[in-house]
Amino acid sequence: MKNTFGNSVTVTLFGESHGSHIGIVIDGMESGIRVDEEFIRYRLSLRSSANELSTKRKEPDECRIVSGVFNGYTTGTPICMIIENTNTVSKDYDSLKILPRPGHADYTALIRYKGFQDHRGGGHFSGRLTAPLTAAGALMMSALEDRGIKIGTHISSLHGIKDRDFSSSSLEKDIDTLNDSMFAVLDDDKGELMKEAIRSAKREGDSVGGILETAVTGIPAGIGEPWFDSVESRLSHILFSVPAVKGLEFGAGFGFADMLGSEANDAFYTDGKSILTKTNNNGGINGGITNGMPIVFRCVIKPTPSIYKEQDTVDLSKNENAKLAIHGRHDPAIIHRARAVIDSVTAIALYDMLSESRL
Amino acid sequence: MKNTFGNSVTVTLFGESHGSHIGIVIDGMESGIRVDEEFIRYRLSLRSSANELSTKRKEPDECRIVSGVFNGYTTGTPICMIIENTNTVSKDYDSLKILPRPGHADYTALIRYKGFQDHRGGGHFSGRLTAPLTAAGALMMSALEDRGIKIGTHISSLHGIKDRDFSSSSLEKDIDTLNDSMFAVLDDDKGELMKEAIRSAKREGDSVGGILETAVTGIPAGIGEPWFDSVESRLSHILFSVPAVKGLEFGAGFGFADMLGSEANDAFYTDGKSILTKTNNNGGINGGITNGMPIVFRCVIKPTPSIYKEQDTVDLSKNENAKLAIHGRHDPAIIHRARAVIDSVTAIALYDMLSESRL
Amino acid sequence: MKNTFGNSVTVTLFGESHGSHIGIVIDGMESGIRVDEEFIRYRLSLRSSANELSTKRKEPDECRIVSGVFNGYTTGTPICMIIENTNTVSKDYDSLKILPRPGHADYTALIRYKGFQDHRGGGHFSGRLTAPLTAAGALMMSALEDRGIKIGTHISSLHGIKDRDFSSSSLEKDIDTLNDSMFAVLDDDKGELMKEAIRSAKREGDSVGGILETAVTGIPAGIGEPWFDSVESRLSHILFSVPAVKGLEFGAGFGFADMLGSEANDAFYTDGKSILTKTNNNGGINGGITNGMPIVFRCVIKPTPSIYKEQDTVDLSKNENAKLAIHGRHDPAIIHRARAVIDSVTAIALYDMLSESRL
Amino acid sequence: MKNTFGNSVTVTLFGESHGSHIGIVIDGMESGIRVDEEFIRYRLSLRSSANELSTKRKEPDECRIVSGVFNGYTTGTPICMIIENTNTVSKDYDSLKILPRPGHADYTALIRYKGFQDHRGGGHFSGRLTAPLTAAGALMMSALEDRGIKIGTHISSLHGIKDRDFSSSSLEKDIDTLNDSMFAVLDDDKGELMKEAIRSAKREGDSVGGILETAVTGIPAGIGEPWFDSVESRLSHILFSVPAVKGLEFGAGFGFADMLGSEANDAFYTDGKSILTKTNNNGGINGGITNGMPIVFRCVIKPTPSIYKEQDTVDLSKNENAKLAIHGRHDPAIIHRARAVIDSVTAIALYDMLSESRL
Repeated sequence: MKNTFGNSVTVTLFGESHGSHIGIVIDGMESGIRVDEEFIRYRLSLRSSANELSTKRKEPDECRIVSGVFNGYTTGTPICMIIENTNTVSKDYDSLKILPRPGHADYTALIRYKGFQDHRGGGHFSGRLTAPLTAAGALMMSALEDRGIKIGTHISSLHGIKDRDFSSSSLEKDIDTLNDSMFAVLDDDKGELMKEAIRSAKREGDSVGGILETAVTGIPAGIGEPWFDSVESRLSHILFSVPAVKGLEFGAGFGFADMLGSEANDAFYTDGKSILTKTNNNGGINGGITNGMPIVFRCVIKPTPSIYKEQDTVDLSKNENAKLAIHGRHDPAIIHRARAVIDSVTAIALYDMLSESRL
Repeated sequence: MKNTFGNSVTVTLFGESHGSHIGIVIDGMESGIRVDEEFIRYRLSLRSSANELSTKRKEPDECRIVSGVFNGYTTGTPICMIIENTNTVSKDYDSLKILPRPGHADYTALIRYKGFQDHRGGGHFSGRLTAPLTAAGALMMSALEDRGIKIGTHISSLHGIKDRDFSSSSLEKDIDTLNDSMFAVLDDDKGELMKEAIRSAKREGDSVGGILETAVTGIPAGIGEPWFDSVESRLSHILFSVPAVKGLEFGAGFGFADMLGSEANDAFYTDGKSILTKTNNNGGINGGITNGMPIVFRCVIKPTPSIYKEQDTVDLSKNENAKLAIHGRHDPAIIHRARAVIDSVTAIALYDMLSESRL
Repeated sequence: MKNTFGNSVTVTLFGESHGSHIGIVIDGMESGIRVDEEFIRYRLSLRSSANELSTKRKEPDECRIVSGVFNGYTTGTPICMIIENTNTVSKDYDSLKILPRPGHADYTALIRYKGFQDHRGGGHFSGRLTAPLTAAGALMMSALEDRGIKIGTHISSLHGIKDRDFSSSSLEKDIDTLNDSMFAVLDDDKGELMKEAIRSAKREGDSVGGILETAVTGIPAGIGEPWFDSVESRLSHILFSVPAVKGLEFGAGFGFADMLGSEANDAFYTDGKSILTKTNNNGGINGGITNGMPIVFRCVIKPTPSIYKEQDTVDLSKNENAKLAIHGRHDPAIIHRARAVIDSVTAIALYDMLSESRL
Repeated sequence: MKNTFGNSVTVTLFGESHGSHIGIVIDGMESGIRVDEEFIRYRLSLRSSANELSTKRKEPDECRIVSGVFNGYTTGTPICMIIENTNTVSKDYDSLKILPRPGHADYTALIRYKGFQDHRGGGHFSGRLTAPLTAAGALMMSALEDRGIKIGTHISSLHGIKDRDFSSSSLEKDIDTLNDSMFAVLDDDKGELMKEAIRSAKREGDSVGGILETAVTGIPAGIGEPWFDSVESRLSHILFSVPAVKGLEFGAGFGFADMLGSEANDAFYTDGKSILTKTNNNGGINGGITNGMPIVFRCVIKPTPSIYKEQDTVDLSKNENAKLAIHGRHDPAIIHRARAVIDSVTAIALYDMLSESRL
């Protein structure tokens, strides 16, 4: 339903890039969940623009919990978190109502909202809205961790440079490594090459994208619904609302297209205690429901559409073809920041499903 | 919300493979929409098992509209469609409660429903449930066609064999061709190779999967929401609830990972009448909202998990590793049938979003 | 959301009075709930028209469960129940599209559905739709009874004739008495007077209404939400969708208007085991949440609008004032049948809230 | 769904009486609606405690719109309004966790939230939460007025003192009078008697309640749904979530119990232009759908439970019966303030239904 996601536990996002505040309301979390504000700050720092790879717009992203938390625990009533917008330079954006940026939402927002949208800095479409989303997800991540569920994401590919795969034998350790790292790769050498590719794009006034791979361990079997709330459906719903995500695959994903059924099926076995599968081509999900194996998925992040190179567009005031050169503060890549957002929306969807399943 | 999909117009699916009926309730369609029962029957025939490539279970799939349609038009109150299950051979399935089939939902259903699931023929997880889904979608497809919106899907790849791409210059004609065809390919020679690959898998007691590519033309700009109901989010939600779909990409999709921003951005231009884009890497969607260009996406269909080859599983009654050989009636491929389901769920999601947007 | 009620457990109603079937889908009930089809039949008989007080239209109301129940227990997937319409005489109603009946939905349905409504017998607005609603509620009533929760309703007033009040000291026994009775009064002498009032109205071609009072025992404290899903809100939502209900009050209800706070407040006390209140003016609900005392409410049922006396209306084909004389089969009162519907919708709302509260 | 109300346009309420802020998010309002902040302030002043009849807690209730409004018009994205809590004296409330106040939510909140609720000043249950609700409703009231729809409420009864009835011939004028008045009565002499009754209750350390009657003019025919979203259902859902509302009746309401059908039915007639009814016993609603006549309903407001007289309660720390004397700042009546809240929630429900109906 519009700006609300979730069934049992919902999040509602509000705010514009250059308005007074952005924020989020979490409704339906049970009472008595420990809230770790320090962890929320840490997760916000993972998505913030703290180094030379990223935009020059620097905001403290000080997230304030204004309701629903009392003495360090959730009260069971709605939690509202707000972040003040302190560093807004609106004059950069005034031409964009007339010259829509390719790959951005300027044109579609104009049509959708009939010209009443707050166009400054992308308004409600701004990537800045992912800050409260990250904060809400961080609150749920720590609640999930308290239940033994871990979530981690690495840059599996960036403009052709590939990180090593997750290790199936030490997956939890890989996740811990990523969550302690500002630049989320498993192979640091590859990470250096990726950073160089980002710097190179920046020098050219261009941008790069890539693929994020996420793993979730510790999720119990039996979560999800056959129709229409499969685990894939719920995760995809929130993942595809993160700006720049244009593709998503679970387990073997598009690789299934060339497999035979005998290769694709994950054979069951027991180690005496648990039912496990020998392979995990289905990414921990059968028939839309978790089978107890790790959930694994990859989503593609398109290159940041804000580039400094001159582009073709239309002057909407004259209905004439025109040229556009974007100024202002922009990221040559967002994938290394997006990983924190992906972790958070994964936490939001899984927390909701767990809550609904009462497991 | 569980077995219901949609905001403004909802569908609720019910039934089990070997129960008395399966069916669907459509709620929220406005009154006065023409209902073409002949077209619904035709679309059901596209997903049915009418040839040597498919399962031996043959059902007439006679869909009966029991409410919400009067004198050939929607009344505005809920439409219930039911299909009787006439050809059920339940004895084939009795062992499956003990020996879960790899790649199927037998095990996860057992955990999720604590042993109370109707396990016969996959029960509520059965691909048979896609019949009422196809019927509901067919009703919406014809309503969309009356508004100039066309939906078509081809098998873009099957076990390594690739169909030709959609033609950007004659996309509507491609869609018409596909919708008149029982085996949905744009290049018939490639279609023959694909059929041979299916027959070959069948001879081996194995199965194949592939990739379906869908295009939608005529959709107006301005449909969708930034958070969390982007067009990608809503389509993905319903697409990932179709059994066997494990990946989905819009426009350039995973190809974005290797592009620069300057290659990825779709430059705007005007032909004097409309705002168009020179490329369509974003698949007709910017910032979660349609931009008026065709919506294009691909989803991967994993190989049918029911194969005749012996597989490893666990005997749940003894918690011991065991071997499983599946008998009964199964498809060596479902992708050529799934295209009708994909068209229908696309129609359901788009009809709902159009209805919500009041465009 | 339109024809669906409920958060955690939902019901979706479909069908028209003179269509082929009417029915209901229940979604979200957990697996393993015992289903007592005999009890459902009994509750349907309480709302059916089996005696001289009611309409001559007699239907077996044979309710068929077509999905979601397997071997006598819920499977956890949607339960669809259908009832065939066998005894439909549509010719009685043809004039009603032109001459709307006062107090009925003929006129509002025409406006709402732009003339496409199935007008025969009231179509989707028919009281007949309360049959599947009663069946769904009966399924939940027995599940609630298994948890020690009892629901009962009596005719507390009918055209000025008042039944005795519920006994606070033997409320459960009162409820048992009502549920064993076809005409739900606590004082049989008053019941005879009420029946005579109904027969008298019938002789005059007129109709009567009254007040139904409902009590619920055994409900645990802690169910409900402050905003906006208070117990009163959820109950009222479904109660006010029952045709003919035009007023609802909880506990002292409208009597509060003349009380002082010191009279109205229900003082707490402990009997050593439980926290109780000395009075129950709040009808078991404080701040929208159950306090463990019985839930008590009353709803008014307006007189059946179908009367045989001549009435003023408008000939919509000519936009002229006109006279209307209704023929066909109609009830001089529905209140003695409505009690079964009120019990059922109460069960539906409470089951949903309990399910959501996980108590 | 919990703290969210609405289908097409939703409101989500957050905050606690003694937290940093309280607020509300409105989602789904279309873009381009004029926002009159002055009118919002005026409506907040109608519910605030600005005179000797009310609590000594005085807050400016400065409502700040932090998102979704740009240059004086709605943007189409979520509108968040926040109000800072500036005047909180939390020490007044510390004993209430042990000694629950009769008639209040202290005990039920404790059970519902397992002791984690913010108990200070009633926390999330506080009447203070009706301030943002009033603000959100005010925004919608002015949008409805722009469409010719007016809403007004008077104190029809207060502790036995009755105001005159709405005039059916000059109903709009009555509504205008009420909306210009701080103490909403139609007969000022009766208003003076009511004020004296409130002062008298105050002198006794007691409180009074009453009945509020609301009328809505200008609402078009054809709004609402038969199941389960009747106009009565939707209005009742939000009205019963306003603290202190314990009963609600539409049109003749409980008066129907003693009527014959021939008295109760509202005969149709035409004045040449419109279809009207001679009486309005159904309060403007037939079959759950508006018929174009004014919507009229009454709700009972129970006496404020906070009284200064000593009351019986339980000491929860010892599970022993105990005495309670409440100190702090409390209203001897809230009905004269509640009228602004009732207008606002009526506006919220109607705006949502109109939006859904596209009329």
